[in-house]
Amino acid sequence: MPNQKQTKHPLKLFALNSNRPLAEKIAEAAGVELSQASIKHFSDGEISITITESIRGSDVYLIQSVSDPVNTMLMELLIMVDAARRASAHSITVVIPYYGYSRADRKARSREPITAKLIASMLEADGVDRAVTLDLHAAQLQGFFDIPVDHLEATPLLARYFFEHDLLDNLVVVSPDHAGVSKARRMADLLHAPLAIIDNRDPDKSTTKAEAVIGSVAGKNAVLVDDIIDTAVRISISAQTLKNAGANDIYAVATHPVFSQDAVKHMTESPLKKVIVTDSIQLPEAKMFDKIEIVSVGDLIGRAIRRIYQERSVGKLFLKEERESTKP
Amino acid sequence: MPNQKQTKHPLKLFALNSNRPLAEKIAEAAGVELSQASIKHFSDGEISITITESIRGSDVYLIQSVSDPVNTMLMELLIMVDAARRASAHSITVVIPYYGYSRADRKARSREPITAKLIASMLEADGVDRAVTLDLHAAQLQGFFDIPVDHLEATPLLARYFFEHDLLDNLVVVSPDHAGVSKARRMADLLHAPLAIIDNRDPDKSTTKAEAVIGSVAGKNAVLVDDIIDTAVRISISAQTLKNAGANDIYAVATHPVFSQDAVKHMTESPLKKVIVTDSIQLPEAKMFDKIEIVSVGDLIGRAIRRIYQERSVGKLFLKEERESTKP
Amino acid sequence: MPNQKQTKHPLKLFALNSNRPLAEKIAEAAGVELSQASIKHFSDGEISITITESIRGSDVYLIQSVSDPVNTMLMELLIMVDAARRASAHSITVVIPYYGYSRADRKARSREPITAKLIASMLEADGVDRAVTLDLHAAQLQGFFDIPVDHLEATPLLARYFFEHDLLDNLVVVSPDHAGVSKARRMADLLHAPLAIIDNRDPDKSTTKAEAVIGSVAGKNAVLVDDIIDTAVRISISAQTLKNAGANDIYAVATHPVFSQDAVKHMTESPLKKVIVTDSIQLPEAKMFDKIEIVSVGDLIGRAIRRIYQERSVGKLFLKEERESTKP
Amino acid sequence: MPNQKQTKHPLKLFALNSNRPLAEKIAEAAGVELSQASIKHFSDGEISITITESIRGSDVYLIQSVSDPVNTMLMELLIMVDAARRASAHSITVVIPYYGYSRADRKARSREPITAKLIASMLEADGVDRAVTLDLHAAQLQGFFDIPVDHLEATPLLARYFFEHDLLDNLVVVSPDHAGVSKARRMADLLHAPLAIIDNRDPDKSTTKAEAVIGSVAGKNAVLVDDIIDTAVRISISAQTLKNAGANDIYAVATHPVFSQDAVKHMTESPLKKVIVTDSIQLPEAKMFDKIEIVSVGDLIGRAIRRIYQERSVGKLFLKEERESTKP
Amino acid sequence: MPNQKQTKHPLKLFALNSNRPLAEKIAEAAGVELSQASIKHFSDGEISITITESIRGSDVYLIQSVSDPVNTMLMELLIMVDAARRASAHSITVVIPYYGYSRADRKARSREPITAKLIASMLEADGVDRAVTLDLHAAQLQGFFDIPVDHLEATPLLARYFFEHDLLDNLVVVSPDHAGVSKARRMADLLHAPLAIIDNRDPDKSTTKAEAVIGSVAGKNAVLVDDIIDTAVRISISAQTLKNAGANDIYAVATHPVFSQDAVKHMTESPLKKVIVTDSIQLPEAKMFDKIEIVSVGDLIGRAIRRIYQERSVGKLFLKEERESTKP
Amino acid sequence: MPNQKQTKHPLKLFALNSNRPLAEKIAEAAGVELSQASIKHFSDGEISITITESIRGSDVYLIQSVSDPVNTMLMELLIMVDAARRASAHSITVVIPYYGYSRADRKARSREPITAKLIASMLEADGVDRAVTLDLHAAQLQGFFDIPVDHLEATPLLARYFFEHDLLDNLVVVSPDHAGVSKARRMADLLHAPLAIIDNRDPDKSTTKAEAVIGSVAGKNAVLVDDIIDTAVRISISAQTLKNAGANDIYAVATHPVFSQDAVKHMTESPLKKVIVTDSIQLPEAKMFDKIEIVSVGDLIGRAIRRIYQERSVGKLFLKEERESTKP
Repeated sequence: MPNQKQTKHPLKLFALNSNRPLAEKIAEAAGVELSQASIKHFSDGEISITITESIRGSDVYLIQSVSDPVNTMLMELLIMVDAARRASAHSITVVIPYYGYSRADRKARSREPITAKLIASMLEADGVDRAVTLDLHAAQLQGFFDIPVDHLEATPLLARYFFEHDLLDNLVVVSPDHAGVSKARRMADLLHAPLAIIDNRDPDKSTTKAEAVIGSVAGKNAVLVDDIIDTAVRISISAQTLKNAGANDIYAVATHPVFSQDAVKHMTESPLKKVIVTDSIQLPEAKMFDKIEIVSVGDLIGRAIRRIYQERSVGKLFLKEERESTKP
Repeated sequence: MPNQKQTKHPLKLFALNSNRPLAEKIAEAAGVELSQASIKHFSDGEISITITESIRGSDVYLIQSVSDPVNTMLMELLIMVDAARRASAHSITVVIPYYGYSRADRKARSREPITAKLIASMLEADGVDRAVTLDLHAAQLQGFFDIPVDHLEATPLLARYFFEHDLLDNLVVVSPDHAGVSKARRMADLLHAPLAIIDNRDPDKSTTKAEAVIGSVAGKNAVLVDDIIDTAVRISISAQTLKNAGANDIYAVATHPVFSQDAVKHMTESPLKKVIVTDSIQLPEAKMFDKIEIVSVGDLIGRAIRRIYQERSVGKLFLKEERESTKP
Repeated sequence: MPNQKQTKHPLKLFALNSNRPLAEKIAEAAGVELSQASIKHFSDGEISITITESIRGSDVYLIQSVSDPVNTMLMELLIMVDAARRASAHSITVVIPYYGYSRADRKARSREPITAKLIASMLEADGVDRAVTLDLHAAQLQGFFDIPVDHLEATPLLARYFFEHDLLDNLVVVSPDHAGVSKARRMADLLHAPLAIIDNRDPDKSTTKAEAVIGSVAGKNAVLVDDIIDTAVRISISAQTLKNAGANDIYAVATHPVFSQDAVKHMTESPLKKVIVTDSIQLPEAKMFDKIEIVSVGDLIGRAIRRIYQERSVGKLFLKEERESTKP
Repeated sequence: MPNQKQTKHPLKLFALNSNRPLAEKIAEAAGVELSQASIKHFSDGEISITITESIRGSDVYLIQSVSDPVNTMLMELLIMVDAARRASAHSITVVIPYYGYSRADRKARSREPITAKLIASMLEADGVDRAVTLDLHAAQLQGFFDIPVDHLEATPLLARYFFEHDLLDNLVVVSPDHAGVSKARRMADLLHAPLAIIDNRDPDKSTTKAEAVIGSVAGKNAVLVDDIIDTAVRISISAQTLKNAGANDIYAVATHPVFSQDAVKHMTESPLKKVIVTDSIQLPEAKMFDKIEIVSVGDLIGRAIRRIYQERSVGKLFLKEERESTKP
Repeated sequence: MPNQKQTKHPLKLFALNSNRPLAEKIAEAAGVELSQASIKHFSDGEISITITESIRGSDVYLIQSVSDPVNTMLMELLIMVDAARRASAHSITVVIPYYGYSRADRKARSREPITAKLIASMLEADGVDRAVTLDLHAAQLQGFFDIPVDHLEATPLLARYFFEHDLLDNLVVVSPDHAGVSKARRMADLLHAPLAIIDNRDPDKSTTKAEAVIGSVAGKNAVLVDDIIDTAVRISISAQTLKNAGANDIYAVATHPVFSQDAVKHMTESPLKKVIVTDSIQLPEAKMFDKIEIVSVGDLIGRAIRRIYQERSVGKLFLKEERESTKP
Repeated sequence: MPNQKQTKHPLKLFALNSNRPLAEKIAEAAGVELSQASIKHFSDGEISITITESIRGSDVYLIQSVSDPVNTMLMELLIMVDAARRASAHSITVVIPYYGYSRADRKARSREPITAKLIASMLEADGVDRAVTLDLHAAQLQGFFDIPVDHLEATPLLARYFFEHDLLDNLVVVSPDHAGVSKARRMADLLHAPLAIIDNRDPDKSTTKAEAVIGSVAGKNAVLVDDIIDTAVRISISAQTLKNAGANDIYAVATHPVFSQDAVKHMTESPLKKVIVTDSIQLPEAKMFDKIEIVSVGDLIGRAIRRIYQERSVGKLFLKEERESTKP
């Protein structure tokens, strides 16, 4: 045997169970086949995993959105990391298009957990070498990790929708609450539009009075921007508020379509014209509805993985994405 | 303010959601009230916890079986630990009557995880100071922890059933497989009975031939001993094998009644006369059936917590338990 | 010698060099004397510390703002923690009224550090058991720590200024940028006032056009709210913008007066009527000016330390503070 | 100098002092020379190590059985790991054919250590990247490590002895106690033989009555299977018990020949016909005796190292080994 | 049960096997009985420990010199720590009168280990809370620990010998090599004597020429000072060198009598008049000889433990010791 | 995309702000260009860093002396490490020609910190993979790190000065205190000269009496050797003492020219003829003076980096350096 070797670290991409269609798009964009693992769920909930091909010395990428059912999808990921580490992977990268629990990022009241940090700590303790994320609820979540995080941004892809559908005319971008104004400002910059804010004083109550809008929306087409649409209560009320304030067409734009409880019903009945989201979360048939438009992040993530694997700059990818997305 | 203080560390006992009836028995035996926390589950599975009384400086005990749905119950526990640590608990003890995933304790094949170790590591990384467990699948699981583990044993309580119901006559204790012989030997010692083994050559196939029994069972009352009854396939087949080999009354004894899939059906249809288990796992109504006998571990665990809290030996409790349980 | 002891853990409060006047107020409110340590700075910058009284078995609280010169003040704190740990302190709490580098809380661009996390990690690696902080730049910074953080809030104290000086009439609260709207919303709630926002599109350029205000300010008294006033460029321009938009009296309110570079000059020349800040950072004579009003946080922090030391709820302190501060 | 390099990570194999003959066989099978280090033992027991060739950037494999004197051999290994880490090895793999203290894998009684875990933790804290082990006393010991463990199995090699010496006729495989039945079952599968068990009720007392055998052995050739033969008391008594029960030829098979105290005398005087062990532990002349047959694991371990170094699957090696070993 | 408790943390002092006579003196000085543990050594070297009384909630002190056989004594200590931690000790303090491997404190050549650091790291990883040491070979070893180290000094006790035996006249203190001059300087200060140095150019060769002495020794009584006497080659040659240079009575003083190989023979045959050492290491009968004088450190260590347990300053003990030892 | 890659790990060398001229010499000797980063210091002391070229997958070397202002230079280094780690560097090596705080390497008195260890721990916690240092104050500091340390030695370069300037005649090497005798011995070996020592009894007071010299210096040329010249008080007094004792030409030799306070004045006014130091610390113009001679360590460090990067032995470099430096 030669006493020296050329290290090669093959790329192995695994799709866990939360979002296989997206994983397939990612694999295609990355230019590799998905690797094989057996993942079984027993009737009491226990998960059993066997990786069915050798990954010794490989750079392993695990694709999993921590989405409904979030605890199960998270445990799938943690167990798979354990299996990959014990199977002598050279490096383990978790690719998390939707990072569940991301809103549990601070103690809002006494004696609350910070679950978003707990998840980061568990992934690191489990031996993860790198994370790839998409539009985290707060940018500070990157700091919950000590490992490198490649944080991708879907905003240019979502902005591109307005360019491609020729909807740039007379727009105003609206933040549905105080905490998300920076996100709305970012979208407003891409769409070259002014900004308004829904002054949602009491976060638990509805606000549909026209005077609740700070900024001018009358006679304009409004783009409501958020990172997550969960129960859709706030986005629907915001749409109604804008309508009362004289807005014309109203769009909702968000990266992560959680769509829990009666979300679909709320949006269907609201004055929203379109709801533009990404495929970071796989939507079941029952959550599809007329107004929805889905923009895929598969190509974005796949190209990012390719650059990471080849040790080329991911920052340049962002710049290129943005330039391409928003040229008229 | 005086510049010195008397540290007191109040005892705070919390029941999470997996087994509240047992937690109440534990609290009663420990001589304290259960403390209060709000635990909400959202429709996408996210769990939100707020501890609703101050625990600053307290010795906190969290009671949770990692049972169906195991991933959710585990995450409840991990999130509660995070909340308790951030809320300045003086110490955090997890009391885990049933430790889910305990059978995933080694790599049986290449590229498998060791999930039982993963859970131990996550609990330790989360800041747990001590664990109280009951009849772990393998004693080596204690070594998965570096924190102190107080490992309780239900075997004397289960043996007591035979003493109390005057069933000691002409017994043989039977292990349903090769891996569990030590457990059966322990029960045989308590019941002063001989031992036999089902020679389950192919772990995936059924074995009901009489010649599959190693040891003598004909004309005896047999006590099948296991730590967990999951699908009940093996225990039911073992009962039939014993019946074919000439056994009279056949009992199944196990600490943890997982009872997944068609377990109840299998046991009902089997030649088993009684199935004696503990309440380490809360059984829903649908899993109750005629043959079942439930022995509570609430008093055992409650007294152990009291001793731990008061820094008295737990080892002596074991000796006392055993002596009491098995005197004729 | 008796073979048992009563643990008492005396309270020892140390002031490092960044803000001794505040430390003295804190000690007074906590009801203890400041303990003694020798802290020398050599001409090449090396710091030498000797704790000059025994702290064996004590609960040690170290008071230090990480303020100008931030690196020196941070190193003083880290070295003092090392000394206290090696001197057998029972517990070490760092009390950080101003947390320098708190704005470096995320990667805004590729290949940037997250220094706010680095500091948290260094404190934890150094053996700190708890942190007490005040109005962190982002609430998510609590999650940068795994140890308990008691996060205090100065907003009610700052709001109290308006109650006590009878300035509640015809107010509008204004956020000087998009990222701080939540802070402004919190102040607006306390002052029962409406909200407006300066739409500072280009963060590097000045904005003094009246149309840059989102919301209505004409004829009202405006309260600009921020957590930190650093160079005061943004707050001064915002004041001018509000003036152009027709505001009457304009106040600036902030917790942390960094006042670097020409901050005092900018504020003096601006249309600001008053600048209300806390003493979280010690201001040298040269940075005092006519318009400034200083509200002390000494009592708040001192009472919090007393509660922490006595293991009583700090959350209740917050509620009481708020109630007292904002009753007319 | 070119600003890029081809990483090569030469393979460096070191033999420590416990079992140099085996290390040489391993090196030969792996196809490399043993590298050089100076290991001195001073008269008070201190060990001094100097690695006498550069290992910067190398994949270092350290071969050491933790055998008599176990503490010295363990410290040799730990010190060598420290030296290799500080000497900039690219990776460090410990190859431990016999893992001393492996029976201390759980708390059998109150207030006992779990030394097998302690050793794993010390190796990991010392910077080991991977372990290669052979027939650990319990498979759960793999979970004592968080680093990858390649666990090799000698059972097929030991079974091969019976194939090669034409001893397959009329065999029964016997476990000498309750805890080792799984190991015996594995051997029985390879030898296509039935199973029996010595019912060793009292682990401290001898058992030579014929009725202590569960299962049928009369008139058969018996193969007693264990992982470790230490004092040989149990295996010798078991042999006598089998003889009393009517067995013909009796063989003992074990991976690890510890042979402490009067082991050789016990086996010599027992009815055992042959004692088949591996060279995982180097036996001194004084412990060699007529009945002994030694099967080398050098080739197995050497080929495993070659596969690990070349990042090829080790699992496939197991399958191949087994197939080759047990074809008639 | 009352829901609050008074924590008491009983003091438990254990003697391991290296130096039981010293441990008994320590216990007497500390005012407690030694606690009981069973420590067995098996013939292959494995150590088995059971702590035979409850230590739950206790402050545990483990007394062990890491002396011949050093690896065994070290493992005894590490295993005992593991047992104490798992047995729920409140705190674990290791008391190490002689810290073996302390001379392996740096890389003197390429590819050497730093074993003194390895031992510190292993003790910390094992869960030790504090160390008590005596005259470490280099003061920097304190920095190998992150836990508190109470470093005791025997020099005043050794100096006291000269005061008590009226040997203060016409003394010169001599360092036998370059590295130990600071130790000699310390002794010279206590004895109010001048200093000389043996210029031992080649550390591997003997030096007995008179000109090898730097400083004036002719006609004086010389006190050779070292921390450890190991083979006694250097101290014996130094004595001869001093004799050649005209010294009168020559004494050797050292804290730790390792006395390996022919140490006793060398010292017996040398011109040394007395060899004054402490009982940090237990000397077997065979190593006792006419010239030896043993000063006990039992009282010093016992009083230090009492102060640590009671959380009183140990620094004050040092000052008092020195004052008492060296008053004429 | 091909599913395999050739890893290359480009070498990236960064100069932080403490000593850019040295960094440029190092880069030249290593044969690479310095890479680019933006490092800004704000007026309150906060440091902002952006690495302005991709370093993904690179072996990053950061060159920084922790010199005046030491806290700022240290924080620059720690923040840069954080940035490099988050930017996906393959490995991070810190090159620290002058390690500030290195004299804080032990607790000289009760309740002091060990800041040299604190810095090592912070660098390791920050994710540094390797350190390159030069003439650490004590060799034991290597043991403060668990990562590999390549410790370079400037003594041969400093000795070379005497060879090259034909100053070898009639030399005596003198240690200015007790602690540094080993360093002086090393230089004496290289210069083939005898040794003397200044008996500096009271470290706080001056010593200029001739009798304070141990060893013979009259009529000789003296070479005072130290690792650091800080305030230059001790070296200047030592020079005067030697002059009083009859020495002729007196040289001071030291690796690290801290030169704080009135150091230059002291040396100028002393009888020193030359002060020979390295460029490990960048001296401002104001600290240059007639007697100074600067020997560059740039080539030494640059060649060491090249060898480390190429995974060739650094030990051999030392041997070669020494041989070349000291041949007449």
